[in-house]
Amino acid sequence: MKIALAQLNPTIGDLIGNSRQILAAAKKAAEGGARLLLTPELSLCGYPPRDLLLDPSFVEAMSLQLLQLAKDLPPQIAVLVGTVQPNINSHVKGGKSLFNSIALLEGGKVQHFFHKRLLPTYDVFDEYRYFEPGNESTFFILDKLRIGVTICEDLWNDEEFWGKRKYAVNPIAELSALGVDLLINLSASPYTVGKQKLRESMLQHAARRCARSIIYVNQIGGNDDLIFDGCSVAFNRNAEVVFRAAAFATDFSILEFDEQRVDILPGQIATLIDNEDAEIFSALVLGVRDYIRKCGFSKVVIGLSGGIDSSLVAAIAAEAIGAENVLGVLMPSPFSSEHSISDALSLAKNLGIQTWILPIADLMQTYDKTLSDIFAGTEFGITEENIQSRIRGNLLMAIANKFGHLLISTGNKSEMAVGYCTLYGDMNGGLAAIADVPKTRVYSICRWLNQRAKENDPSQEIIPYNVLIKAPSAELKPGQVDQDSLPPYDILDDILDRLIHKHQSAAQIVAAGHDAAVVERVVKMVTRAEFKRRQAPPGLKVTDRAFGTGWRMPIASRRTEPHDFLIKK
Amino acid sequence: MKIALAQLNPTIGDLIGNSRQILAAAKKAAEGGARLLLTPELSLCGYPPRDLLLDPSFVEAMSLQLLQLAKDLPPQIAVLVGTVQPNINSHVKGGKSLFNSIALLEGGKVQHFFHKRLLPTYDVFDEYRYFEPGNESTFFILDKLRIGVTICEDLWNDEEFWGKRKYAVNPIAELSALGVDLLINLSASPYTVGKQKLRESMLQHAARRCARSIIYVNQIGGNDDLIFDGCSVAFNRNAEVVFRAAAFATDFSILEFDEQRVDILPGQIATLIDNEDAEIFSALVLGVRDYIRKCGFSKVVIGLSGGIDSSLVAAIAAEAIGAENVLGVLMPSPFSSEHSISDALSLAKNLGIQTWILPIADLMQTYDKTLSDIFAGTEFGITEENIQSRIRGNLLMAIANKFGHLLISTGNKSEMAVGYCTLYGDMNGGLAAIADVPKTRVYSICRWLNQRAKENDPSQEIIPYNVLIKAPSAELKPGQVDQDSLPPYDILDDILDRLIHKHQSAAQIVAAGHDAAVVERVVKMVTRAEFKRRQAPPGLKVTDRAFGTGWRMPIASRRTEPHDFLIKK
Repeated sequence: MKIALAQLNPTIGDLIGNSRQILAAAKKAAEGGARLLLTPELSLCGYPPRDLLLDPSFVEAMSLQLLQLAKDLPPQIAVLVGTVQPNINSHVKGGKSLFNSIALLEGGKVQHFFHKRLLPTYDVFDEYRYFEPGNESTFFILDKLRIGVTICEDLWNDEEFWGKRKYAVNPIAELSALGVDLLINLSASPYTVGKQKLRESMLQHAARRCARSIIYVNQIGGNDDLIFDGCSVAFNRNAEVVFRAAAFATDFSILEFDEQRVDILPGQIATLIDNEDAEIFSALVLGVRDYIRKCGFSKVVIGLSGGIDSSLVAAIAAEAIGAENVLGVLMPSPFSSEHSISDALSLAKNLGIQTWILPIADLMQTYDKTLSDIFAGTEFGITEENIQSRIRGNLLMAIANKFGHLLISTGNKSEMAVGYCTLYGDMNGGLAAIADVPKTRVYSICRWLNQRAKENDPSQEIIPYNVLIKAPSAELKPGQVDQDSLPPYDILDDILDRLIHKHQSAAQIVAAGHDAAVVERVVKMVTRAEFKRRQAPPGLKVTDRAFGTGWRMPIASRRTEPHDFLIKK
Repeated sequence: MKIALAQLNPTIGDLIGNSRQILAAAKKAAEGGARLLLTPELSLCGYPPRDLLLDPSFVEAMSLQLLQLAKDLPPQIAVLVGTVQPNINSHVKGGKSLFNSIALLEGGKVQHFFHKRLLPTYDVFDEYRYFEPGNESTFFILDKLRIGVTICEDLWNDEEFWGKRKYAVNPIAELSALGVDLLINLSASPYTVGKQKLRESMLQHAARRCARSIIYVNQIGGNDDLIFDGCSVAFNRNAEVVFRAAAFATDFSILEFDEQRVDILPGQIATLIDNEDAEIFSALVLGVRDYIRKCGFSKVVIGLSGGIDSSLVAAIAAEAIGAENVLGVLMPSPFSSEHSISDALSLAKNLGIQTWILPIADLMQTYDKTLSDIFAGTEFGITEENIQSRIRGNLLMAIANKFGHLLISTGNKSEMAVGYCTLYGDMNGGLAAIADVPKTRVYSICRWLNQRAKENDPSQEIIPYNVLIKAPSAELKPGQVDQDSLPPYDILDDILDRLIHKHQSAAQIVAAGHDAAVVERVVKMVTRAEFKRRQAPPGLKVTDRAFGTGWRMPIASRRTEPHDFLIKK
């Protein structure tokens, strides 16, 4: 039996456009002789649909669209489509009103629904907000082949693999016990660094444990802060990779399932990106491109400071939508170094993007004049530094508004963590492209970018050498460098990694060898910056724990650390 | 038996401060002869602690603090304290690692834990993110009295009252079947308009159905966007109100439980506020006051436009923290009407707040000059209107930064819904005081404020008469009024109420009598403004569906309406 896989890039809520994608894949699959087409989780509405699901009219439109799609499909093919399905007993038995389901469409009709059983409610996931968990794992029979269907998280509860149980049940093991011939997992699993390898180890473990072949189909594309990497994959019953789809791109393939050997035969195997810098760069390019496209923009504007963050963001944008669609704006002040202009212009030249220079000295003076009475007797300080950043933020928004461009902000995760950024200033933008990329990683991605460029042409560079070696500076007062206010970035990033990603306490971070005073200062800065992060644009998620939808901290709070307890009890 | 109720106002995460509050209440209760003290849900850490619960060191600090509190309590009293408790079997059985619990402290020790069974995952609630539901409802025996303990949502699943089941189990009915003498519900139930009455009807229904007395203790205070109103209440076994605590204020009381009659004897009954305008105003005053205080500020700055929104926000702030702590800033432009200054100054005089006037004409000119080359050949439009708003936003932030004031933004819900506001301009601020108050309600609250003032002194007004009667205008171009861009506010607010609060589709709103073109335009404006709302400051929630933590919409999306489906299929 030939089984087709469509690694699709849906737009959230666009039922008609997404149906067209499924239909096109089904036609191609039928032409290629496939008997079954697999599409990702919630392929009809895109994942995550979020609170669109709270509107009954949207759910109704989805049901109608599913019926229409069933009618429009080629007659010879069965298709698995991700959709929601009402939980008709919820009024009587209690529970949420919807299931997260896969519909089996065949012969012009919906033949069966499979419901997702394990609902993630951690990190960015809110599935219990909308869905009731399914209470059984089932399979369908297609030309005598018993095919077990699972949805995304259903796969993620192997206590042997994880060393602990996350949920009470294991749908994969249940289907295996039911004697299915083939396991299928339809997913919308967001990208994080290294996740592609983690998923494959887990799938391999499941194939080995169940001694069954598994086909895994994942969504691709950027949806707001989330990037879906695709990397659909199949394992045969010997737990060997026999198929891998492209990373960060739509893909379509037809696999051959040998009914005699009850196994998948080898197919194309795309190479996994074997470099984290390259992997993250590809993810960000996809995330930026899709946000621009799905929001209806075609061009972007970026403030170029001559620093490394804006250089990387400009490089990402140029790769995402073409250099001709990227406008870089330089806004020098009297505190700007000469190299801030020359470095930004070199970068723009390397990328081939257009630039504009808008000096801000006059605006700085006019703000000073306007505020001179109320600020009489006060000294130059953070307020005046923020004014510069906000003048720039306003100029960028004016250009974005006037020409219909999207403004992309350039703050990195280290800055966002400690609040070394200006709300309504450099934080301005519709999308924060590198908000989940720590400063040390920004450097390594930039070095990798230059290395990639040199492989094609030894004389070429993308990020100007001077940008890579000069001391980072906000240039908001004379002679300022970041390290006046922050620990060195390698130390800061290690503390932040422990605090944010590893959930370590201040005491544990100090025990790991960091200076107690520095740790205490960093922890305080992170807590105090919560109000800024709350108002930040969506930031593309590339780590296990990004600020944004998966980071839900109180603002008006007073966090008690264990050492407070010990001191004050 | 004397039972004390502490209607407490905890600060999120402040384990030591919150323990002191509980301890103080316990001492007072013991002195008053009480045998038992009741405190709200999660009284040790405050509700909602959100992602603080993901840090193991915070959970550990909480366990240590609970043990310390047990030791510090007066010996003759038992105390129910809200806390979290590890789910020690989660590694083996699966499930979340914590319970949302009530600890019974007595004799220097933790005697028992009661776990919350029904976990809300709708609106602003994310309890399944952190908690495993408890699997049984239990009671404790104190001096022969069997006391059944439930936590907040445990009460909210009476299918007779709601006409449907929300959850599979009903803890209240189970405890009733176990033959308890008294039901207790410890809550952190956020305020929305009319919720106090809804809760009492539900409690009354439960008391009648179970023929048992019920004591309900609620948290009070503002925590970021959520306002907890208190209004703790008790019903006797005849389902009569026998006690009611204050609304929007901390409170402490001792009730008498007659063991012979197995019933609560009548106590103090505070009057419910019988006017929605007054109720909302009180809620907002509490929300503003607590946000300021819990964030560590003592003064606020507000932009005064002479319009009704900023007038109301100034009145709320003056009532919350005293007129002497409120600074109003007037920022007239060449497009400002004369009355915008005179009305703002009248308001400031009525309230007794300080003002400052900063004209923005010079800054407008300097922005025009700075942008003249890049904007050459373009016309005055939305961009230039936004620049004015952003100049004002920057000046307000400069004042806030320089003097350490909190900036409070003044946008109402109607504006936030349709995006009739400027990101990084008038949306600037640490808190959006009236972001959940529709424009028509802003008017009615202001009229009520004047009426209240007149009751004390017939010559007094708070909101100047001219502010109440003039046409609303952003004054960003000559002769502009809101109704150039928006439907009349009574029509707009009705459409928004149906769309947002009643989850109606465009077709249903048209069927209710609204013009189809107007409805379509409003729906599109609401969808398009999502990117602005995502970057808005926290807004105080007073309705069932506020923008913010309980509104989780995608940005890069294409919402399919049922009529799209019908047209295009």
